[in-house]
Amino acid sequence: MKNHHAPTLDAPEIGEANIEMAAVAVQTSNPPAASTRSEARDSKVLAVERSLLEQLLRKLADPPLRLVLWDDTEILSGDSPPIATLIVRTRAAFFRLLWDPNRNFGDDYASGEIEVEGDLVGFLAALYATTVDVPYSAAGLRLFPGERRPRRNTLKGSREHIHHHYDIGNAFYQLWLDEEMQYTCAYFADAGMTLEAAQQAKLDHVCRKLRLTPADNVVEAGCGWGGLALHMVRHFGVAKVRAFNISEEQVKYARERAKQEGLADRVEYVLDDYRNISDRYDAFVSVGMLEHVGVENYRDLGEVIHRSLTPTGRGLIHSIGRNRPGYMHPWIERRIFPGAHPPALSEMTQIFETRRLSVLDVENLRPHYAITLHHWLERFEASRDQVRGMYDERFVRMWRLYLAGSEAAFRSGELQLFQVLFARPTVSDWPLTRAWIYRDGG
Amino acid sequence: MKNHHAPTLDAPEIGEANIEMAAVAVQTSNPPAASTRSEARDSKVLAVERSLLEQLLRKLADPPLRLVLWDDTEILSGDSPPIATLIVRTRAAFFRLLWDPNRNFGDDYASGEIEVEGDLVGFLAALYATTVDVPYSAAGLRLFPGERRPRRNTLKGSREHIHHHYDIGNAFYQLWLDEEMQYTCAYFADAGMTLEAAQQAKLDHVCRKLRLTPADNVVEAGCGWGGLALHMVRHFGVAKVRAFNISEEQVKYARERAKQEGLADRVEYVLDDYRNISDRYDAFVSVGMLEHVGVENYRDLGEVIHRSLTPTGRGLIHSIGRNRPGYMHPWIERRIFPGAHPPALSEMTQIFETRRLSVLDVENLRPHYAITLHHWLERFEASRDQVRGMYDERFVRMWRLYLAGSEAAFRSGELQLFQVLFARPTVSDWPLTRAWIYRDGG
Repeated sequence: MKNHHAPTLDAPEIGEANIEMAAVAVQTSNPPAASTRSEARDSKVLAVERSLLEQLLRKLADPPLRLVLWDDTEILSGDSPPIATLIVRTRAAFFRLLWDPNRNFGDDYASGEIEVEGDLVGFLAALYATTVDVPYSAAGLRLFPGERRPRRNTLKGSREHIHHHYDIGNAFYQLWLDEEMQYTCAYFADAGMTLEAAQQAKLDHVCRKLRLTPADNVVEAGCGWGGLALHMVRHFGVAKVRAFNISEEQVKYARERAKQEGLADRVEYVLDDYRNISDRYDAFVSVGMLEHVGVENYRDLGEVIHRSLTPTGRGLIHSIGRNRPGYMHPWIERRIFPGAHPPALSEMTQIFETRRLSVLDVENLRPHYAITLHHWLERFEASRDQVRGMYDERFVRMWRLYLAGSEAAFRSGELQLFQVLFARPTVSDWPLTRAWIYRDGG
Repeated sequence: MKNHHAPTLDAPEIGEANIEMAAVAVQTSNPPAASTRSEARDSKVLAVERSLLEQLLRKLADPPLRLVLWDDTEILSGDSPPIATLIVRTRAAFFRLLWDPNRNFGDDYASGEIEVEGDLVGFLAALYATTVDVPYSAAGLRLFPGERRPRRNTLKGSREHIHHHYDIGNAFYQLWLDEEMQYTCAYFADAGMTLEAAQQAKLDHVCRKLRLTPADNVVEAGCGWGGLALHMVRHFGVAKVRAFNISEEQVKYARERAKQEGLADRVEYVLDDYRNISDRYDAFVSVGMLEHVGVENYRDLGEVIHRSLTPTGRGLIHSIGRNRPGYMHPWIERRIFPGAHPPALSEMTQIFETRRLSVLDVENLRPHYAITLHHWLERFEASRDQVRGMYDERFVRMWRLYLAGSEAAFRSGELQLFQVLFARPTVSDWPLTRAWIYRDGG
């Protein structure tokens, strides 16, 4: 097979033409009436195309799949029973897939030129599993050229990136998040817990780790819809929380809620960037913001934490992460989370080592995020007609793929969830063991 | 003060001469009969010498000390009551201290040309406290020129380095270690536990974290006197342990013990380097070896772990560490632990990220090592006459300083103790929470 003369996958003349075709297709196509469309525009699959597809499947270690191409050609990949059926409805989508599957699969799935029938999460997890064990030294030799540096999170860039994702409408997120509007990994002390209970447990877990008391003033960087800040006051009686966020929709929602609960005097939501945090606090907490900070800003974040903490202060950062450095999935970075980057621990340590903050405890909650996403995806599917009514079918498919792909990434071990507890280097009144976290069913 | 023309601390003509003097003094001097000696050889303290000393004290943020110089000049440093009295008995020791306090203090303390009366640990902790909060970006601008890269741990280098420290005599270590001969940080679930109980608790803590069962084959890298390997078989019933160590004295001792306990068929002590580990195991464990590996070998260690673990394998590394990268205290590296380096977490991650091992849990046990060292130092002092009989007074003073300095380093936050639990990236049968570690009083 090594000496056949079929065009290689990255032959630029094919690829570039198809990238442009992809762009046009994405901008113009509606959910296609697939069968009529494919019959009209695309001729039979050629031998060379089939050979290219087989090359791609080999690169992916022959995942157990049934493939159906635009002329109804069927191909069985792998030895075990197929997890799902992948339907490629057009030749254009086929070449886009060959050219850069990581980036183009998502757009063609969203437009409907590609369909997955059967277990979408299992299908995506099987693809992740083929790369999850690749050694770091081979990181330069990427399977596909799609990976790239995320967009920079300058003050202005961050505002745009956060607006892109978090300001698309509180009503949309309310359809499938829990009552507390927690859009971060929950904590399933037991896999059968409800999402509501597991999100409450996450809030407790964070507050317990920080050993919050009524004597504490807390600053929160990236507060979402404000649930953690309220939880700290309600259940741990902390004196005051200042919670920063640059999403206007979220801050509006959070302020309204604090007012309704009569807690507006103790929880202040500040519509501003974490880099502008002022004053000193007993605890710094950030749940699900680090993914949007960008490695280039980690040392500055360390400085912000340093100047914001009292001499005996401590903090917690909860973030999606990776087992080794690498970029965010390029389609997610492009369509869902501009500027996002899930760090490896080696990258996260820049935050702490800059100012010699002492890491007390790191917990990897990876399986919890797979369960959380499973709940979100289920609720999202149950609300898909409403979502379609608010946006359109492309949006539904895009978000389905994003949620399913995220579940697959956590399930397969492609992504991790790190909670890092830290303190000033001289901290001396901390308990000797972590047993306190687990008392009373914690 | 900036424009005075007193010689600077690092004027090479003074410094180099004194380094040579120091070397001669260290090689030739016996514990001096201090007062007669100082009277005979050293004239009165000069104004310029006093000014140099004041500069040094300022660099150290004026620690609360009483200083007594060779002509009985007394100086009070700092505002609070003095922690201890530092006696500098000779002018030569004084200049060695000015030239490179980090490296020369230890040798002059060992020879008796420098004495500390009062709280030695408190004195050393106060010195550490002056540097513990310095930001990382200033790491290049060291207070003193003493820090330097540790010696390399090639296969041969490691043998020499380990021989230097661990082969000085089992009888010596038996005087002040616990019954299990644990020469690593114990686990004090409660600060009042005996050292014996806390070392047992440490062995349990490590085995619990790894979730060892009778189905497991375990490999241990750097097994000391063999206590952990025996504990795994005795209390967790593991099928087999192969424990590697390059200290001949330790391996001899460990083999003898396994034979006495009738466990020689299940615990195999191998006199070989961790780099020569072969076969596959369900768990990899290393307690207190990483300090001797050297950062330059971390990626290779990651490869060793990768090739030694079954597809569902997991592991634990327990090591002294730091809040940011930096070298071992130069006197310790020179006289006590050649080649040693306590890594920052950013350095440790090289081991795991090389092969995308997934970090599940990091626990910082810093305060436990301060308590452990407190016990060791107490037992050591109780046995000092025996130690003097086995070696000499210089050896007693050297080891006192090493143990006291280590306690001070952990107490002040200069050093950390990291336990890192990790697994293959695809591990899927791990408990959702860490509560299991803390059940039944664990």
